[in-house]
Amino acid sequence: MNAQDIEQKLLKGPYHQWLGLRVQHAGEGEITLQVPFRDEFIVNPDGKYIHGGILATLVDLAADWALFSWTGKGVPTFNLHVDYHRPARGDLTVKAKVLKLGKQASCAEAWVYDAEGRLVASGRGLYAMPTEQGAV
Amino acid sequence: MNAQDIEQKLLKGPYHQWLGLRVQHAGEGEITLQVPFRDEFIVNPDGKYIHGGILATLVDLAADWALFSWTGKGVPTFNLHVDYHRPARGDLTVKAKVLKLGKQASCAEAWVYDAEGRLVASGRGLYAMPTEQGAV
Amino acid sequence: MNAQDIEQKLLKGPYHQWLGLRVQHAGEGEITLQVPFRDEFIVNPDGKYIHGGILATLVDLAADWALFSWTGKGVPTFNLHVDYHRPARGDLTVKAKVLKLGKQASCAEAWVYDAEGRLVASGRGLYAMPTEQGAV
Amino acid sequence: MNAQDIEQKLLKGPYHQWLGLRVQHAGEGEITLQVPFRDEFIVNPDGKYIHGGILATLVDLAADWALFSWTGKGVPTFNLHVDYHRPARGDLTVKAKVLKLGKQASCAEAWVYDAEGRLVASGRGLYAMPTEQGAV
Repeated sequence: MNAQDIEQKLLKGPYHQWLGLRVQHAGEGEITLQVPFRDEFIVNPDGKYIHGGILATLVDLAADWALFSWTGKGVPTFNLHVDYHRPARGDLTVKAKVLKLGKQASCAEAWVYDAEGRLVASGRGLYAMPTEQGAV
Repeated sequence: MNAQDIEQKLLKGPYHQWLGLRVQHAGEGEITLQVPFRDEFIVNPDGKYIHGGILATLVDLAADWALFSWTGKGVPTFNLHVDYHRPARGDLTVKAKVLKLGKQASCAEAWVYDAEGRLVASGRGLYAMPTEQGAV
Repeated sequence: MNAQDIEQKLLKGPYHQWLGLRVQHAGEGEITLQVPFRDEFIVNPDGKYIHGGILATLVDLAADWALFSWTGKGVPTFNLHVDYHRPARGDLTVKAKVLKLGKQASCAEAWVYDAEGRLVASGRGLYAMPTEQGAV
Repeated sequence: MNAQDIEQKLLKGPYHQWLGLRVQHAGEGEITLQVPFRDEFIVNPDGKYIHGGILATLVDLAADWALFSWTGKGVPTFNLHVDYHRPARGDLTVKAKVLKLGKQASCAEAWVYDAEGRLVASGRGLYAMPTEQGAV
């Protein structure tokens, strides 16, 4: 699958549409997404800072879709860890990469950058792998 | 401050408005929020499951505002850990509680429940405490 | 299984023996362990503070054995999150409790206290559940 | 400071001595440590697997000393997140790197490898930065 195929599948999710996600690059366990700023992202109207929940969302979904670009299967998140490095403003870019593909669980990392290329948040998610029974 | 005062301050944030948050109870390091479902929360249009990023956001903001209900000061998130326990649908309730108030950092926990009272996600955030210089 | 049975199984692990663990209470997803201080635990010879790695170990193993007290099966840790609340000295007590028993993964929490009953560290682990194939 | 200077300071900690740590490389926010296997590391005498607590300890201390190699100051851990990728046996190598040096908190990552070079665990720690008052 190429970036366009993955973007099409990604955008079936209403929240992904709302976030305005664009897939710039995808393949073999890596993905790069563009996230144009929207006013509703703001937590603090004075500083125009983007809500940490938006950044956590970007870490989670980018890591998950990096995994998807490898396995072709959507998988639920077991858990998520996010570190906040700097206040974030404006358009964002998220890069993610699979760290370890496992039988029961896989781990992927993601980094969120602002328009000046500064790292504003990063983290990792653990994702359930599909079982033979399909149950999670 | 009571629940109404805190809700008024909370809703200055555009993303908090978009999430439709209501403060049901607040005080002394604890808070309970109501989060009415909206279609944009969905990650998967078939199952109508709520995006993990929305749940992570709720853990982060509830833990942060539990701390606010104690200290009266808004503080940035250092980092966030969220475990996902069950697929989530419909209206949600979030409860949060300060675990440890520290000099440099404070830790608070949050639990997200669905309308049937089932725990769908939970986690903890670490928050920067205001310094004398005000710098973070 | 009672506390004595669980202690017997726990102490088959050489590192558990080295840690000098004693099971005070166990059953139905909960466990309390006693950890007598030993000089090798120290990170800093001036302050006699206990190494954060020892505290992380206690969170991990207590959470794991709380799960064992419920399921009777030892399971590998997927991941671990630990918050440090205060410098720790002397004998320690660890309490742990299962938060969510799942099909593929289970989550348990643990709290480490010093001899004065102060919370020095706490956290949560995610544990792989046994699969039909037994593979992890 | 070079690797030898850092090893000398590192080994003032009794637990670091017990772990048998050797600094192979250090400098400018990066560190590589060698950890020779010892029988007390074992969690399971049948499989000779190393306890997850030892791996968590290595992630914590390597990340902390990567930071030390940059700042020259020892700092307490705020919190720690560790993912376990494979059962670990035998001698280990740990590499760590500062991800973000901050005013109030700094984040560093670490990766633990076995003698065959396979990644067995990885994670990240958040560390308190020294304040003007020196208080933590």
